[in-house]
Amino acid sequence: MESGTKLERGFTLWFTGLSGAGKTTVSEIVEKELRKRHGSVEVLDGDIVRTNLSKGLGFSREDRDTNVLRIGFVAKLLTRNGVAVIVSAISPYKEARDMVRQDIGDDFIEVFVDAPLEVCAERDVKGLYKKALSGEIPTFTGVSDPYEPPAAPELALRTDEEEPEESARRVISKLEELGYLQTAEEYYRAS
Amino acid sequence: MESGTKLERGFTLWFTGLSGAGKTTVSEIVEKELRKRHGSVEVLDGDIVRTNLSKGLGFSREDRDTNVLRIGFVAKLLTRNGVAVIVSAISPYKEARDMVRQDIGDDFIEVFVDAPLEVCAERDVKGLYKKALSGEIPTFTGVSDPYEPPAAPELALRTDEEEPEESARRVISKLEELGYLQTAEEYYRAS
Repeated sequence: MESGTKLERGFTLWFTGLSGAGKTTVSEIVEKELRKRHGSVEVLDGDIVRTNLSKGLGFSREDRDTNVLRIGFVAKLLTRNGVAVIVSAISPYKEARDMVRQDIGDDFIEVFVDAPLEVCAERDVKGLYKKALSGEIPTFTGVSDPYEPPAAPELALRTDEEEPEESARRVISKLEELGYLQTAEEYYRAS
Repeated sequence: MESGTKLERGFTLWFTGLSGAGKTTVSEIVEKELRKRHGSVEVLDGDIVRTNLSKGLGFSREDRDTNVLRIGFVAKLLTRNGVAVIVSAISPYKEARDMVRQDIGDDFIEVFVDAPLEVCAERDVKGLYKKALSGEIPTFTGVSDPYEPPAAPELALRTDEEEPEESARRVISKLEELGYLQTAEEYYRAS
């Protein structure tokens, strides 16, 4: 399908979880699949957002929440215009995530990317846990700053128990189940 | 056309000009017409943006430019997904507007909403000029802060010389001319 044209319904796939839990790894596999199966895909990841929407914000609860609400605002605009939006953000506070959920409505799909803190700290992809544990980073989610897990996410992934490909497959299945993507069977029946 | 579905090309219609020049007045008439003729329309006006993207920013050149670039970032995401985006923002600095133009590319349509300062100050829709001239507002565009007019806008409207309806009609004609909207003739030929 030509870029900028589409007939599909939009949604926001919101990956929340600790640093190192696997949000980016899983979401990148999901993104590849979505680009084959949905006309419009946008990724709002931490770096893009920090540069373009939230430069100057710090890591207080207020600033973290402002960051989450800004991402939510942009995700809402895209979603209601038919875009498949992928958000990867620690988004540690339940209240802010729930405000985004309320704002976007049924098309908000929360994916809890879950792994024990020790596993995340051992992976330490960006070397941040080392700095957090030594005190070099003073407010680090999971170490010295809270993370509030979702009470009722649409999907929970245990990335210490399954491979990223398997996690991504479960996300895609959820999207099919919710009617945002056609199953292979539906696709062939329609064409 | 159902919400969230569309086949049209996106664009950003960027209204720039002094406070009181008529950006909102003209853009609201344009918005009504676009909602009839384009599947997806979003309005990013000053208030929406200050609340959702730029709370905490002030009126220094740096903060004003940050605000403009943030609006531009969101407008770009929407535009490349087929949305007709209407932006009303003083956006006083040429460099920042041109960065947005470069980022969005051909689908950026700059509309200079022009009226002499005295006319804007006399209209004083929000009572801001009075405060600016008395010094109560220290940095006010056109009074105590610069406004750099566009060198080559796609369209310039002299709102002191024509009625808002006439200005809006010229914007719509420009969109037809650029191929973003069908003319009535094309519409009836196609249906």
